[in-house]
Amino acid sequence: MSTSFSTAIKALHTSEIGDILKVTQKPEVISFAGGLPAPELFPTKELAHATNEVLLHSGAQALQYSLPQGVPYFREQIAARTNKKFHTKLSAPDILITSGSQQALDFSARLFLDPGDVFLCESPTYMAALSAFEVYGPQPIGVPTDEAGMIPDELEKLLKTTAKVKFIYVIPDFQNPTGRTWSLERRQNLLKLANRYEVTILEDNPYGELRFEGEFLPSLKSMDTENRVISMGTFSKIFCPGMRVGWIAACPELVEKYAAIKQGSDLHTSVLSQMQISKYLDLYDIEEHIKKIIALYLKRRDVMLKAMADELPDDVSFTRPAGGLFTWVTLPETMKSSDLLMRCLENNVAFVPGHIFYPDQKPQNHFRLNYSNMPEDRIQEGIHRLATIIKQK
Amino acid sequence: MSTSFSTAIKALHTSEIGDILKVTQKPEVISFAGGLPAPELFPTKELAHATNEVLLHSGAQALQYSLPQGVPYFREQIAARTNKKFHTKLSAPDILITSGSQQALDFSARLFLDPGDVFLCESPTYMAALSAFEVYGPQPIGVPTDEAGMIPDELEKLLKTTAKVKFIYVIPDFQNPTGRTWSLERRQNLLKLANRYEVTILEDNPYGELRFEGEFLPSLKSMDTENRVISMGTFSKIFCPGMRVGWIAACPELVEKYAAIKQGSDLHTSVLSQMQISKYLDLYDIEEHIKKIIALYLKRRDVMLKAMADELPDDVSFTRPAGGLFTWVTLPETMKSSDLLMRCLENNVAFVPGHIFYPDQKPQNHFRLNYSNMPEDRIQEGIHRLATIIKQK
Repeated sequence: MSTSFSTAIKALHTSEIGDILKVTQKPEVISFAGGLPAPELFPTKELAHATNEVLLHSGAQALQYSLPQGVPYFREQIAARTNKKFHTKLSAPDILITSGSQQALDFSARLFLDPGDVFLCESPTYMAALSAFEVYGPQPIGVPTDEAGMIPDELEKLLKTTAKVKFIYVIPDFQNPTGRTWSLERRQNLLKLANRYEVTILEDNPYGELRFEGEFLPSLKSMDTENRVISMGTFSKIFCPGMRVGWIAACPELVEKYAAIKQGSDLHTSVLSQMQISKYLDLYDIEEHIKKIIALYLKRRDVMLKAMADELPDDVSFTRPAGGLFTWVTLPETMKSSDLLMRCLENNVAFVPGHIFYPDQKPQNHFRLNYSNMPEDRIQEGIHRLATIIKQK
Repeated sequence: MSTSFSTAIKALHTSEIGDILKVTQKPEVISFAGGLPAPELFPTKELAHATNEVLLHSGAQALQYSLPQGVPYFREQIAARTNKKFHTKLSAPDILITSGSQQALDFSARLFLDPGDVFLCESPTYMAALSAFEVYGPQPIGVPTDEAGMIPDELEKLLKTTAKVKFIYVIPDFQNPTGRTWSLERRQNLLKLANRYEVTILEDNPYGELRFEGEFLPSLKSMDTENRVISMGTFSKIFCPGMRVGWIAACPELVEKYAAIKQGSDLHTSVLSQMQISKYLDLYDIEEHIKKIIALYLKRRDVMLKAMADELPDDVSFTRPAGGLFTWVTLPETMKSSDLLMRCLENNVAFVPGHIFYPDQKPQNHFRLNYSNMPEDRIQEGIHRLATIIKQK
């Protein structure tokens, strides 16, 4: 039967991460593997009340077919919030509601990529973006990065010498998987180069509102003067991921292109889901809620960093994220993180090995740790087990 | 900027139907254009109660990330209901939850179609399926149909002489746009031919539970002995469309392929949406609810058919659907339904002209009428206006 499948599907890799995440669902496992928010902060009661309001007062609208772009009032709310938070100048026609930002990644690939086209991205980058793009048959090229973002000279060298670069995909704030944040200068450099070489930027910003410390840095979208930046946001990390509500911010002309894709893909995102979150935003103060998330993740980050500083050998280093959900650990070059993972799983500790985050060259001595989903005592215990196993090398 | 878009997007047509539907949202328009359920029957109070139960007792699960296949218990419920209603033998691993059956169409095209591949479908067929498939660059071929379904000799002729036929897309029950239902013999014939020529069947079944009269006919999936049928279902017509919850029923091997696509596209359908409907199914009797829908649509169908019989000239014919949402009107060959539509819109009556439902040859003298969304007096008035305009020809 498989002979009849499309080329894209034959090329699709079984998700390595999926297999790891399945193992980590066992309750005895201390998992630093997923990117799961802390469920104890989900505003379940508030959402129940908001849902009640929507269904009893606007039920016929909430349950009927709607437009692919999304609910107009909800698009306004998102534009206004984004303007306040990220200094953009968006209005409703710049926003299209998606079923999570994963769908924004899929649609962006569908909008731009033909087989053989090239996209550039940070090396390493978010692995689920790589798999979303992969289906469309492009060639990914990783741009070397350091702790301040993509290295401009390396980026320019690639832009100068590479044909058919369709977009540059970046996560400037609290990057997945490294936890790093781009400096202002690097942001300005990226925009300058994208403008010079006329390349679209996909700015993925799921964690930007979760800053623990340090100064605010402007989003790429807010510095965009040529409609060159398509920005992607989501309620997954500031509200909840299970409802799958995200958005694309772009110029109205592009939003209409995305709307045509949305129409063919799934007509529109659940109207009820949109109106539930919209009503929550009207009835409650989400900024207060986000403060609670930040306070909790900061505490968990601190516990994890301190445990690592105390227990890991000196030849193991890790990043100090100023926000977001992840830190990135670097082992000595002779150690493979996938071997380490096997030994850790035997001791009920899990993480994601680093090679799967690389678009092309795949160094083997990194791994990603998540600190948002485990309580502090489990973080301490997990890092203790991890350090013990590393020291046995 | 448009030079950088993908081939698929450059080829994408602006949706003609979208433009029509926009016009019909004005309250003064009597619209027979959409395929909208009657909103007065949406179970808003029951859903509010079910949501409350889910959020207060299982909020952490309902709002967290989940698996691409869907919520296990919900998949079980759907398998059990489908078995009862359509005599299938499904279990949870045969079911994948999608964001409406539009997504099932998109994923199916992605699973099977490369540019240049062929799919067969009824002529006419559901236009949104044609646009979902179109993105992947296939060649659609319409199989001639009569009131009992695809004509077997015509189908066999095509299967014998056409290379790269990847699937046959059909809507056997209360077809969109014609309202016709396939006879048992034609169903058996289709399966026989699909088995002989080793072609997959996509069975789209959004209306099958809405039968007004006549005997039950087995679904293709229930007669499938070779895992040749992929069946698509949805809660849009038996519950509500705005939540975008549907499913694919196929063998587990195929479900896992679809799951890989789902993972890359949007991770999973909203867990909360799945659990809301799941809880509704547990707390309430959806069969009683469906009886109400059937009673209302039957009454509206009768009003529409009687008004047409009374008022339309003899050279205009129409189908008598035994269920579902649509009837299909045939004008004399010299009349164009798109011209008629222009004149009708001036009189605030809307429908969908028939040519957009055809995959290849596009006769101009048909149109589709929907009777589920307008109250009886508006149906009568709308048909009166329509008939008056037709008689002025």
